[in-house]
Amino acid sequence: MEIAIVGLGLIGGSVCKALKKNTFHHIMGLDADGEVCRKALDSGAIDEIITADGLNDADMTMLCLYPETIVEFVRQHKDKFKPGSIVTDSCGVKEYVVTRCTEVLEPLGVIFVGSHPMAGREFSGFDYSTDDLFKGASYIITPSENTPKMAIDLLSTLACCMGFGKVVTATPKQHDINIAFTSQLAHVVSNAYVKSPSLFNADGFSAGSFMDLTRVAKLNEYMWSSLFLCNKEALLFELNTIIDNLCEYRDAIGDDDIERLRDILRDGRERKEKSNELYAEHARRKV
Amino acid sequence: MEIAIVGLGLIGGSVCKALKKNTFHHIMGLDADGEVCRKALDSGAIDEIITADGLNDADMTMLCLYPETIVEFVRQHKDKFKPGSIVTDSCGVKEYVVTRCTEVLEPLGVIFVGSHPMAGREFSGFDYSTDDLFKGASYIITPSENTPKMAIDLLSTLACCMGFGKVVTATPKQHDINIAFTSQLAHVVSNAYVKSPSLFNADGFSAGSFMDLTRVAKLNEYMWSSLFLCNKEALLFELNTIIDNLCEYRDAIGDDDIERLRDILRDGRERKEKSNELYAEHARRKV
Repeated sequence: MEIAIVGLGLIGGSVCKALKKNTFHHIMGLDADGEVCRKALDSGAIDEIITADGLNDADMTMLCLYPETIVEFVRQHKDKFKPGSIVTDSCGVKEYVVTRCTEVLEPLGVIFVGSHPMAGREFSGFDYSTDDLFKGASYIITPSENTPKMAIDLLSTLACCMGFGKVVTATPKQHDINIAFTSQLAHVVSNAYVKSPSLFNADGFSAGSFMDLTRVAKLNEYMWSSLFLCNKEALLFELNTIIDNLCEYRDAIGDDDIERLRDILRDGRERKEKSNELYAEHARRKV
Repeated sequence: MEIAIVGLGLIGGSVCKALKKNTFHHIMGLDADGEVCRKALDSGAIDEIITADGLNDADMTMLCLYPETIVEFVRQHKDKFKPGSIVTDSCGVKEYVVTRCTEVLEPLGVIFVGSHPMAGREFSGFDYSTDDLFKGASYIITPSENTPKMAIDLLSTLACCMGFGKVVTATPKQHDINIAFTSQLAHVVSNAYVKSPSLFNADGFSAGSFMDLTRVAKLNEYMWSSLFLCNKEALLFELNTIIDNLCEYRDAIGDDDIERLRDILRDGRERKEKSNELYAEHARRKV
């Protein structure tokens, strides 16, 4: 099968390497940066460098770009995709991308299905891509009502080949709501955490909890600002929720109200314990 | 040397086990729960069960209790401690404890030095104590102006025996300011994070960032509410700081202001990178 990967950064590069390692498909690469294309070819991550015209040979195309760039690319090259072929993407917001791309491609008989490989590193670019980046991770597919069952099956089988540990399907909207909570909020909170003036005085006092809370503060601001604004409503809901909750702890502490503080903390602990069980159960089920 | 450990919970129990494993000192244990004392003796974690009267034999006493209980214990048994002996504690706030205990013990010729073994687990109680809980962790000593140098040297040498990776000294006030940021804030934020209604819908969407941000949400609400209220001023400062900062992200996202959002995120990333360097440099120095 002919697979085109557009955008050979951390994710696109890792997709190429994982597919080359674990399948015998023909992998074609396209990137705005010619040097990156050359590097991908020389390292054996792709079999062939293509231009947009080459997309017509692809049975499947994966767009590994930022959300706005995915939509621009699809609008600009809509006539290049092969009718009947599957086009998917890898970005972290789905409703924004799926709505716009489906609107353009569906009338042309090209099947757009959003997907989101939930993996990343603190570094970006092809140089950091690896053939095992997706090992054990979740691959989320966001089909619409018109998505053929076989397209979902094909994507989830390719996900197995790339090393993902499980596939989850959700509507684009549900994906965005969940991801605002589990991933986007984590990045905002972590990035906000390090803004205390105490940061540069506290060396020697950092234990596991501090390292955990601040690990993802080191983020790519170009990618994340784009993802945040494409999922504005859901992320604002989560931000307002955590701000309101933090104010409750602040007020209980300010009032020296130990009973109330204990109740709030207990409630948080119990939610965490309950969700640990739920998430572990989900992991066992392996959808 | 005769060492008394008061409070045989997770920390007290681990101190006993680490000292028994790595020194030939005589370890005496005291706990309000007779069954725990018996268990500690039977498992070889202590050499002897004592009552408060036994403290008079101790060259060093470590109080492994909650802050208020430490102060109560010292006030109640102040005449039991051997003049010239060292009394230290293990709790996570220092000014509250050091001020009160020093006030009581100094006139009696007993040397009180606050300390804080920066280690813990998600579980409490003697049953979870281990002889390697402190491996590589920081041991913080908070001497006052009157603390004899030799008392600090003795505590830091015992810290080596217990497996700590380094010793940091700080004033009680500086300790509390730093710990509000690196540890207490982390526990509040993590506990607040899980309070979104999205928590129970997002199974299958949790990646590393979510797990990191919410790990310490599972906390002991009795211990932490006590620690928070004993360090009210510093923690309120950190809470207000992160709430204000989170509002900035929220406003930039609400206003669709991508330039501003990128600037805020970049600033956070740069602070995190800079502090990583600083903290790594500190770790290399090993005070």
